[in-house]
This record gives sequence, C-alpha cells and structure tokens, in this order.
Amino acid sequence: MHSQKQSLIQSLMAQAQELTELRSVLETLQWDQETMMPALGGPFRARQLSALSALHHQKLTSPDLGEVLERLSTADLDLWPRAAVRELRRQHEKAVRLPEALVRELAETTSLAHAVWVTARQKSDFAAFSPWLEKILRLKREEARCLQVSDSLYEALLDHYEPGMRVRELDELFALLRPKLTSLLQRIQASPRQPKRDILKGEFSVAQQESFGRSVLSAMGFQWEAGRLDRSPHPFCSGLSPLDVRLTTRYSEQDFSSSLFAIIHEGGHGLYEQGLNPEHYGSPACDGISLGIHESQSRLWENQVARSGAFWEHWFPRLQQTFAGQLDSVSLKDFLHAINRVEASLIRVEADEVSYGLHVIMRYDLEKQMVEGDLEVQDLETAWNASMKEYLDIVPSNSAEGVLQDTHWSQGLMGYFPTYLLGNLYAAQIFHQAKKVFPGLEEDIGGGNLTPLREWLGEEIHRHGKTISAQKLIERISGEALQSNYFLDYLEQKFGQLYGLND
Amino acid sequence: MHSQKQSLIQSLMAQAQELTELRSVLETLQWDQETMMPALGGPFRARQLSALSALHHQKLTSPDLGEVLERLSTADLDLWPRAAVRELRRQHEKAVRLPEALVRELAETTSLAHAVWVTARQKSDFAAFSPWLEKILRLKREEARCLQVSDSLYEALLDHYEPGMRVRELDELFALLRPKLTSLLQRIQASPRQPKRDILKGEFSVAQQESFGRSVLSAMGFQWEAGRLDRSPHPFCSGLSPLDVRLTTRYSEQDFSSSLFAIIHEGGHGLYEQGLNPEHYGSPACDGISLGIHESQSRLWENQVARSGAFWEHWFPRLQQTFAGQLDSVSLKDFLHAINRVEASLIRVEADEVSYGLHVIMRYDLEKQMVEGDLEVQDLETAWNASMKEYLDIVPSNSAEGVLQDTHWSQGLMGYFPTYLLGNLYAAQIFHQAKKVFPGLEEDIGGGNLTPLREWLGEEIHRHGKTISAQKLIERISGEALQSNYFLDYLEQKFGQLYGLND
Repeated sequence: MHSQKQSLIQSLMAQAQELTELRSVLETLQWDQETMMPALGGPFRARQLSALSALHHQKLTSPDLGEVLERLSTADLDLWPRAAVRELRRQHEKAVRLPEALVRELAETTSLAHAVWVTARQKSDFAAFSPWLEKILRLKREEARCLQVSDSLYEALLDHYEPGMRVRELDELFALLRPKLTSLLQRIQASPRQPKRDILKGEFSVAQQESFGRSVLSAMGFQWEAGRLDRSPHPFCSGLSPLDVRLTTRYSEQDFSSSLFAIIHEGGHGLYEQGLNPEHYGSPACDGISLGIHESQSRLWENQVARSGAFWEHWFPRLQQTFAGQLDSVSLKDFLHAINRVEASLIRVEADEVSYGLHVIMRYDLEKQMVEGDLEVQDLETAWNASMKEYLDIVPSNSAEGVLQDTHWSQGLMGYFPTYLLGNLYAAQIFHQAKKVFPGLEEDIGGGNLTPLREWLGEEIHRHGKTISAQKLIERISGEALQSNYFLDYLEQKFGQLYGLND
Repeated sequence: MHSQKQSLIQSLMAQAQELTELRSVLETLQWDQETMMPALGGPFRARQLSALSALHHQKLTSPDLGEVLERLSTADLDLWPRAAVRELRRQHEKAVRLPEALVRELAETTSLAHAVWVTARQKSDFAAFSPWLEKILRLKREEARCLQVSDSLYEALLDHYEPGMRVRELDELFALLRPKLTSLLQRIQASPRQPKRDILKGEFSVAQQESFGRSVLSAMGFQWEAGRLDRSPHPFCSGLSPLDVRLTTRYSEQDFSSSLFAIIHEGGHGLYEQGLNPEHYGSPACDGISLGIHESQSRLWENQVARSGAFWEHWFPRLQQTFAGQLDSVSLKDFLHAINRVEASLIRVEADEVSYGLHVIMRYDLEKQMVEGDLEVQDLETAWNASMKEYLDIVPSNSAEGVLQDTHWSQGLMGYFPTYLLGNLYAAQIFHQAKKVFPGLEEDIGGGNLTPLREWLGEEIHRHGKTISAQKLIERISGEALQSNYFLDYLEQKFGQLYGLND
C-alpha cells in the first residue's frame, strides 16, 4: 500500500514536471515577444503559443492525470505532495471544463490582439482595438461559463488569479475603501502644503538610470546570475524558474523616478520568484500563492520601503552622485514629498498610493460589468470616461491615456486588476508585522541594509510556495485575516505627515 | 478519390504545422540560452528542452502520421505537397528508429554539456569537458546505430545535415582538395609579397562596429522588421520563421574585421531564412535544402562578395568614416590584402579561405574516427594536436585554441563540419554562374548595389525551400554537378593576384 502511494506520487510528479516545463516555455515565448521579437514575428509566434497552449491543455486534462489525482486526494500525504495534489487538482478540474478549441482560440487571439493593442495605443485609436476586445470578451465569457465556478461569471475569472476570493468579499472591501480613499485624496488636494514637482524634472541619461536601478536591485538581494533586467513597453516580471527570473522596465529621459520605481516594483516580484525553493521546481506547489500575495511583495518594496524617508537617507546621496550636478540643489525633504506626490491623474501605473486604489476599483467595476454582460465593448470608452470623472474628477482627452492605457484586456487578463489593490492591503499588513518583528527595521533600511527584510520575507512567504493559502498565510504572519485598516492607517499616517493634514 | 487525397493532405499539413511550431519553439529556447539566459538558468532550461524534444519526437513518430505519409507517398501531388511528403517521410522514418529515451537523453545532455564546454574553454581545461564528450559520443553512436542508414555510422549522422551525401563522395572530394589547398598555402607562405597585418590593428568602439555591420546588413537586404542582431560567444543564425530571423556575433575591440565578417556571414544565412516563402511556413519543405547549401549563402556573401575589391570600393570610404581617423593612412590595396591574408592559424572561425578547408577536413577526419569507434575521447586532444601539425604545421599551446575551440561536439553536432567545406564549393560554383548571368555584377557591387544579387539568389535558391534537392539545385543553376574546380580556380585567381604567385 505504501509503495503504491509512492508510485502514484512519482507518476503525479512526472506529469506535473512536464506541465511546469511547458508553462515555463510559454512564459519564455511571451517574454521574448515583449522584449526581443522583431515586429513581423507576431503571427507565427501566435501559432506557436496556440500549439503549446493546446498541448499544455491536453496534458493537464489527461484522464490518466485525473485518475492519479483522484486516488491521491484521499491519501495521507506530506506537506509538499499534499499541496501539489490540491493545486493540480484545482487546475485539472478547471481545465477539463474548457474545450481545447477554446483554449487554442484564446491563446492565438490574445497573442495577435496584443500587437493590435500596441499599435492602437500608439495611435490612440480605440476603434482599431475594439473588435479584438469584443472577440476576447466573447471568448472569456465562454470560458467563465464553462468553468461553472458560481452564479457569477466574473468570479470564475477572478479565481484564476486570486484562488478562493469571492466577488462578494471584493465588493465589501472595495465599498469600504472607496469613500475613505476619496476623502483622503480630497483632503490632500485641499492642503496648502503641496510638493515641488519640478525638482524631479530634467534630462537623465538612460544608461545612468539603468545603472542606479541595478544597484538598488543588488542591494535588495536580486541575484543577477539567476536573473536579468531588460526593456519592454509595459514593465513586468517573468519567473521562468527560480533560477531564471526576468524583470523589465521602460525609461523616459525626462523622468527617472518612473523607471526606478518600476524596477523596484518588478524587483519585489523577482525576489518572490527567486525565493521559491528550486528543489521543488516542477511541483505545481512551487509557485506564487496568488497574484494578490505576489503584488504584496512588489508593492511592499516599491512603497513601504522605497518611498520611505529611511530608504532615501541611504540612497539619496547616491542618486545625486549618479546624476552628477542635476539634483544637487534638491533637499531630501523636498525629494521625498515629490516622489510621494498625490494627485488625480490619468495613468494607473503612474498613480500615487492614494489614488491608485480608485483606478483599480473603477477597472474592477467596468470589467465586471463587461463579463457579466451588463456593458458592451462599444460603450466601454464612454463608460471609462464617465467613471474617471466620477472617481477622480478628471477626463482623458484621448484613448491612449484612457481606455487603451493598460495591456491586460488585450491579453485576456480579465479579473486580474483587483489583485493589485489586494496586494496593497496585504503589503501594509505584512509590513506592519515586519516592523513589530524587527524593531530596528527603519535603522537597517536607513543604513542601506535590506537583507534582514528580504530574508524574513523569504522565510515567511517565498519559500513556502503554494503549501499554504493566502488566507492562512496572512493569518500566520499577522495573527488575523486580511484587513483594510492597515493600509488605510499607513496612508493616513504617511500622507497626513507629508501634507500636514493634522497640523 | 480526389477529396480523399485533399483530406489526407489537410491532415498531413496540420501535423506538419505543429511539428514546425515545436521545432521553432526549441530553436527560440536555444537562441535565448545563447544570448539572454542568466548563468544559473541552464539546468531547468535543459529540462524544458528535453521535454519539448520528447514531445516533438512523439508527434513525429505518431503511427497516424506514418499512415498518412504512406498513403500519400504514391499519390499524384503538386510540387509543394510532394516535397512536404518526401521530407516528412524522411524525418518520420528516421525518428521511428530512435527510442524516445535516447532523444530525451541527448537533448538534456547536450544542453548541459554546452554550458560545461563554455567554462572548460574559458579555463582551457579539456579534462573537465571530456567526460561529457564521452557521453555525447556514446549517445550519438547509439543514435547512428539505430538509424541504420548504411554500414557507416558516420554517414547516418552526416545525413542529418547533408541529406543524400555519402562518406565515399566526401572522401573523394576531400582527397582531391587537400593536396591542392596545401600546395596553394605553401606557395602563398613562400611568397615575398605579404600583407601588412598591423594596419587592421587598433581600438575600435564596439558601438561603431555594430553600427557599420548593421549598415552592411541593410544594404544586403536584411529585413530588420523580420530580424535582429545580438551577441553570443559563437556567432550563429536562428531562423525561427521567415519573419523572425536572428543573427549573432561577438565583438573584439582590437579587431573589427572578425565581428564584421561574422555579421556578413550570418547575414548570408539570414537572407536565406528570410527568403523562404512565408506562405509555406509550417510545411516541412519550407526550410533550407541542406547545411551545405545554407553555408554556400553565408560564404558567398562573406567571401565572394565582402572580401572582394569591388565591395570595398563602395564600403572602404564608409569604414574610414565610421572609425574616424583610425584608417586614414591605409590604402584600399593594403586593406584588401590584409583582410585576405592567408596563414596557417589555430582557430577555424578566423581562418582564411585557403586554410579553412584544411581545418574542416582535419575535423572531419577526427570525428569520423570517433564515431566509427577508431578514436577514443581520451586520445582526442593528442590526435588533434598531431593533426594540426600534419595539416598546417602548427600546434596549439592549450586546449582553448585547440580541441576545445568549436562548440559543435558539445551540442552533439557530429557530421556537421564537412558541410562548411561543401558550402565553399557550392558558393564558388553559384557565384561563377551569377557573374555569367549578370555581366555587370562587379560594377553593381562596386557601386554599393547588392540588390540584383540578393534577388537572383532569392529566385534561384531561397524561395524554393526543399522542393528541390541540393544535387538538382546546383545542376539547375550551373548546368553541372558539384565540382571542386570552381572553388580551386577562384582561390588560385584571387590569391595568385594578391600574393603575386604568377609574377
């Protein structure tokens, strides 16, 4: 009996291994498409992605795998094999509900649509992209119907990215957050103490921006022999394996802070990927828990760490040295306020910590309506502009800075946006705990020593992969379930001080 | 009956399509490994390559494919489907003879061995690499035994790269070439008119080298929206599809000519890949005919074109301008002689057109002995050094400039080297014909107009893919079978003049 269990586990792991490898290959091709592939390579790449996605789907849905999973589901297993069975069963049961033709069509359509979106955004031409979005939406609604997760089609898609999360929970959390974020934003806008924005302006060499970004990544503990940093239109992190983690950013000569915070953000994701235990590579449990937890790592490094006063005590003189002469007349205090300026703005990825949540809630609202069939693609741009007016009291003057700004929908990533805001909540709750565990954390960061924090995150989060759920992880770390108050308190304290709201 | 044939062809093309896509994915991963992958990424990449190779093998050997091929083999087919059946049948029949375990082991071993070779070459440590080479050799001999092409194990491997070529033919060609190349080399070495080598020395910025190389590629007609140029330790060309063709080179600040001729060489391969008809992408017939024909395209551009006086009439002033001041005192005549200097040297990829053939014949001789079981890996370095003495009268002082210099064996590419020399023969015969077809060819090249030549090569060779064999192609172009005299005459005339051998 014991040896039978062992041979079932062996069969499971061999199949899991192959699935991991196929998925990693798919991710490599996507990374290549974003960073390296020549312009005309798209159509054939789409066919490759479609063929591989179909293969992955065939293997994931194999009856043999289903049987092994079924038999192991009641066995008494150790932590890692148990997590592997749980996760693979989840994936298998979803995949068997999806017809292979749909999987192929989605892979090919989104690969082609992405290229259309790039051009449409350049030309600010929503009409050029909308037929593609209609097709994607139709396929995603079909996918959600096949998955049969609950009465809500949207919930079926959300579950890909934040397993176990319910629309009802999100609705409640976001209903609570929205008025508080709006109120904080309005108080900040009304404050007479506003940052000097111009001090960040100038001409900053891309080579020096990159070099400074690499220094910060090194200090964060990013392992260069197991990773890279490249350029792409939209920054991202690809974890091809724990020993091959690739970050991207984009540079603007006028604005070093945008690329720098993108690098640090993606670096946070990268540390999670590099922190997964390579001994378990191939197991479906050797992966990030959820996109919300993943995002907590990027946001924690980007915001709680790299937008803090302590961080810049160490790094500001180095930044001044990097851009010799260009920031000499800027004080650390003014710099800190400028990189933490809050304003109602059009572009999500450049939004501050306060208004960011409003961007996310607005997208969540729109995409939920689309997926549930309550909003047509042809009405999307009008709805977008009306939402911007309602949430942030500004209106985009063109599609590029409005409805076309994000890549997600072109890639079929519907249900993904809310994980960004969950990431902010998790980050605040985790960092609150980190400060309790390390009373000297601020001094460490101020002295340039980021190692204790990274090691603690590695021990508490990264190395466990999916052996624990998001819900249990946050309870184990902080002693309670996910709360919005840590995030709201953090914002209140930080921006209250910067903008003198309580003076 | 007719519609049955159509549905068989449809089934064939769908399967062929998938095989092409898998092979293209494999090539993308290999390109990435050479150019982009971080150092520690190797072991997991090896597993990906192994899994995909096994998948490719499974699909290529599927009984269903075999049956479709069998039934179509006697059907009356148009040119392209006929070629597709012929080529896929060839691949299928070979593949069914290879056990999947062997295919997997070869893919994984060569992927790992390549990384070992890189380090071993850096450290000039053949002992570190030789256990890997022993394993590769054992696997390749096993592969050759399974393939059962003829009595010669080597011929089975050669057939991968130069379909239809026989060891006996190569032995005859090379027996004829070797004494003539040796004699020409000796006459050149004895000539009092020797080039001024030092004129090519200096410090040449890598950015300017790259920029000049890109100008030449553009003039050759390389399509940048369907291709790239990157760096790798060993220059190569990857044709991921006719619309995604990637070249690599390596730069030395001390020597611009090495990277430049590598760029032009790979550019010649790249034009072949871009010249394949994208409408037929997916068909097994939409591929280079053989490595010998492929190499003829790279060598023709590198040597017949870019080492000619006509070429530099146009490009030399531009080169002088690129490296402002550094080549001002060099005459075109001295420059031409310097880039065509002939000498017995240690490194094949830097060898001149005369001694290059001797490097190839020597490797052919050694690898044939190894594959046939007449030479052990443990004796290889001694045999290498003895051969160098015998063929070129020089002896490497370490493994890096000797037995470890080439990447091929680390990648399991045994039987590949002879195609380099065949490429030289084909190139000379094809270029001889081009000059007959275009009496004004030299003037065109001298005026910087490379378009007529590229278009003619495209019409005569590139666009046909594998619808014609190498043997028939050369007959169709030149009216006769492959000869060694065109190559020998070309060398005799060119180097006779440069070195004043007939004065």
